[in-house]
Amino acid sequence: MAREGLFITLEGGEGSGKTTLMGRLAAYLQNRSMPYLITREPGGIEIAEKIRSIILDPAHTAMDARTEALLYAASRSQHLSERVEPALKEGLTVLCDRFVDSSLVYQGYARGLGIEEVWNINRFAIGSRMPDITFYLDIEPEIGLSRIAANQEREVNRLDLESVEFHQKVREGYQMVAAAYPERIVVLDANRPLHSVEQDIIRMLEVRILKDFQ
Amino acid sequence: MAREGLFITLEGGEGSGKTTLMGRLAAYLQNRSMPYLITREPGGIEIAEKIRSIILDPAHTAMDARTEALLYAASRSQHLSERVEPALKEGLTVLCDRFVDSSLVYQGYARGLGIEEVWNINRFAIGSRMPDITFYLDIEPEIGLSRIAANQEREVNRLDLESVEFHQKVREGYQMVAAAYPERIVVLDANRPLHSVEQDIIRMLEVRILKDFQ
Repeated sequence: MAREGLFITLEGGEGSGKTTLMGRLAAYLQNRSMPYLITREPGGIEIAEKIRSIILDPAHTAMDARTEALLYAASRSQHLSERVEPALKEGLTVLCDRFVDSSLVYQGYARGLGIEEVWNINRFAIGSRMPDITFYLDIEPEIGLSRIAANQEREVNRLDLESVEFHQKVREGYQMVAAAYPERIVVLDANRPLHSVEQDIIRMLEVRILKDFQ
Repeated sequence: MAREGLFITLEGGEGSGKTTLMGRLAAYLQNRSMPYLITREPGGIEIAEKIRSIILDPAHTAMDARTEALLYAASRSQHLSERVEPALKEGLTVLCDRFVDSSLVYQGYARGLGIEEVWNINRFAIGSRMPDITFYLDIEPEIGLSRIAANQEREVNRLDLESVEFHQKVREGYQMVAAAYPERIVVLDANRPLHSVEQDIIRMLEVRILKDFQ
């Protein structure tokens, strides 16, 4: 049986550099000749895409917050079983842009459904599969939002338009979740230039990969 | 503020007479001039209908069992908040054909996901809203299935085609859930002619309604 791959997730608020870093990590794995899968929910999985389209349909203004959280969990469950699990079992390193922590923070904490409650439905969705390592990009909301404003190429999304207070709440939520899982979540100061953050991540990955092969 | 309505659910396996009894209970409430709502999930609620269409799409053979259970919970959450809750708050008696117990029995027990686990995601979906009274129509699978076979008007559905063993498992599941909630779930012997079952239900409803108005 093939050695199971490493499951890595990236988390962070708006403008924290997640997307750019995903690309750089992919390039790093490529250079190291490590087979990998780079993905994000719903990740092109048909059922998950259909679920996501219900969540995002602007006609659905009456969607209950609990319905929304259950739909995110359902989409995650399908993406995990159909895409992530088979890749890990084949031995691929999986890089996933946002995973369960995003739900704990956004729906559980920032939207007020309760971290514990949202964790319960997500535990059902993902079973015992948790990331091996999660990089959380911690950034001051003002700095993150100004980065987005400066980036002409990136489309402004619904979350960008939330108030600074909301983004502050997201940051608080991430800090709480990171404190609850110190073994899994690495907190990185993302107020710095992205190059430094990238170097930190790669250094930590090297250590982890070496440890795995010992 | 209006007095809150009574929330009644009907549960039972295939051929237990649920649909016929729903109609008779509606007629009873009508005769008694009690305002009521008769419904079943997804109940014409747009978001819930769209969720249901994902579950039922025959192209989705690869749907994970957990994804399915989460989608049922999401559809329930939306139907509850958009249709059932407002009706109860207006003082209507709500009659619902299947509710949370169906998920505990079908997904939790018969499909093997675990009653406790399925209960956890449903508790998230419905919050503290439980039926005031649930009538469970207990029937021998062979009798239920022969009733369906004899009923030319009713279309045969996917569940009818499951094995007798599966329907036996559903019955076991219902009996376990009923034993866990003896205050809420009334077990009725549905092997008898439906008229007797109907009389029992109405007698119990009378008692309950009188008690509520005392």
